[in-house]
Amino acid sequence: MRIIGIDPGTGILGFGVIDVLANNKLKMIDAGVIRTPVNQEDFLRLETIYQELHNIIDSSKPNTMAVEKLFFAKNVRTAMSVAQARGVVLLCGRQAKLNIYEYTPLQIKQSLTGYGRAEKKQIQEMVKVILELKEVPKPDDCADALAAAITHAMIKQ
Amino acid sequence: MRIIGIDPGTGILGFGVIDVLANNKLKMIDAGVIRTPVNQEDFLRLETIYQELHNIIDSSKPNTMAVEKLFFAKNVRTAMSVAQARGVVLLCGRQAKLNIYEYTPLQIKQSLTGYGRAEKKQIQEMVKVILELKEVPKPDDCADALAAAITHAMIKQ
Repeated sequence: MRIIGIDPGTGILGFGVIDVLANNKLKMIDAGVIRTPVNQEDFLRLETIYQELHNIIDSSKPNTMAVEKLFFAKNVRTAMSVAQARGVVLLCGRQAKLNIYEYTPLQIKQSLTGYGRAEKKQIQEMVKVILELKEVPKPDDCADALAAAITHAMIKQ
Repeated sequence: MRIIGIDPGTGILGFGVIDVLANNKLKMIDAGVIRTPVNQEDFLRLETIYQELHNIIDSSKPNTMAVEKLFFAKNVRTAMSVAQARGVVLLCGRQAKLNIYEYTPLQIKQSLTGYGRAEKKQIQEMVKVILELKEVPKPDDCADALAAAITHAMIKQ
C-alpha cells in the first residue's frame, strides 16, 4: 500500500508519501509542499493546488489518500480557506481513483503517540522515529502530512 | 454579459444564469440546483458538484461567475462543508475561464434592497421583481444564486 498524506491549506499545503512494506514497516517515498502567493485570488490559488496535486499523484502513484480533517479553528477566515483547499484535495483524490480517508487531529495524535493531547513537536518527533529519518521533515506541513499518512497505515494494520 | 450566480453548498447548490441586456435590463436564462445525497462521502458529493457545474457552464455559456461568500456561520461543521463546495465551484469557474467575483451576504442585501439587514424574503421578492418573474424561484437556493448574479450586474453597471 502506498499512502499520500495531506495537510490542507491555501497558502501552503503539505504532502507526504509513504509505503507500507511487507514487514509492516513504513518507508518515506516523498514529501514536500505546494505554495501559492498570498496576494493571489482564491480561484487562482485553488487552480494551482489542483494542478500540482494531480502532478504529484501522477508521479508518486499512491493508491490511498489520508487527509487531515478540521472542524474547529480559532480563526474562521483561515478555517474557510483551509476547507476550500480541502474540497479541491478531495476532488483530486477522487478523480485519481484513490481510496480516501479523513482523520481528525485527535485521531492523528492518538495514533502516533497514544495520547490525544500530544504537542505538535512530539508528533513531529514520532514521524522522524517511525520513518527512521535523520531529521524531522521541514516545513511542519510536510511532517503533518506524513503524520496523517502514518495514522492511516496504523489504523488499517 | 451573461452571469452565472452560485449559492454554494454540499447538499444543495443553487445556480442562476442571467443576461444583462443592451438597455441594462436583466433577464433570467436558467436557474436550478445541484443536489447530492446526505449519506454520501464528501469526495463523491464534491465530484458530482464538479461534473454537474461544468455541464451547466458548458450548456448555458456564461462569461462571468458571481459566488456568495460567507465568513461566518452558526454551525462550523456546515460552514466547512459549504467552503469545501465553494473551493470546487471556484475551481470550475477558473477552468471554464470565467471572470470570477465573490460577494458577501451584506453586499447582496445592499445591492438588491439598499438595506444591509434586509430579510431573506425581501431579497427573494426583489429577485422576482427585477427579473420580471411571475413567482419567486424555488427552492430558495435558486433565488439566492440569482441574487448573487444580480448583485454583480448592478455593481458593474
